[in-house]
Amino acid sequence: MGDFKLNERLEADSHLVSILGLCQLRLLNDSRWPWFILVPQRNDISETHQLTPLDQTLLTFEMNETARALQRVTQCTKINIGALGNIVRQLHMHVIARNEGDAAWPGPVWGFGKAEPYDTKGAKALMSAIAKEL
Amino acid sequence: MGDFKLNERLEADSHLVSILGLCQLRLLNDSRWPWFILVPQRNDISETHQLTPLDQTLLTFEMNETARALQRVTQCTKINIGALGNIVRQLHMHVIARNEGDAAWPGPVWGFGKAEPYDTKGAKALMSAIAKEL
Repeated sequence: MGDFKLNERLEADSHLVSILGLCQLRLLNDSRWPWFILVPQRNDISETHQLTPLDQTLLTFEMNETARALQRVTQCTKINIGALGNIVRQLHMHVIARNEGDAAWPGPVWGFGKAEPYDTKGAKALMSAIAKEL
Repeated sequence: MGDFKLNERLEADSHLVSILGLCQLRLLNDSRWPWFILVPQRNDISETHQLTPLDQTLLTFEMNETARALQRVTQCTKINIGALGNIVRQLHMHVIARNEGDAAWPGPVWGFGKAEPYDTKGAKALMSAIAKEL
């Protein structure tokens, strides 16, 4: 794990919240939705089924923890999870809080409109609220 | 599991391929993409983290098997997986074969345009090719 290399675009588009057992938990810099990604710290993996069984179990556990924290903090209607990777191939799992009437509701958030970056205060507040619940 | 009730919209929009250990594997009736859903046969579950740990492990295993079968059959560029549930709340996991230049590439397939139903022959051929690889 010492030489894990995070994809440059994922790095540029998100803030590091916490390093969990397997994944980096990162906040996407788009204030339209509370939108996190979990990036397993493994090189050359683009599909979840390429992870070892142990890593898959860790990923599931970390997704659960993230989703539960997000529900507690945001009181959202629905969690959306997804691994697409059509643009950035490095495996990253999206965990997003959705609410009825949000910008893309009930459609998916990926590829929708243009990101609206957080101000520093907004990102920090959400990141610390989530980190506290983990 | 005897009294599992499949959501009516999921039932209407898809064909049953196989009943696995936990899930019904179903083919979405949209020929634009090889698009399957896995529906855990559990009532009143809308989020993956509401499943028991054993059921989560089964779901992961069945997603792996489905994704690998889909890759072998379609030779696709990328697998997309996702659990959204903004419209139908009953938990269902999408497993979709994506190819560069397909109708929605590189965006998500959910909510994109209008479904193009299979002819009976096309659906049967894909379903049996996948079933053979499971």
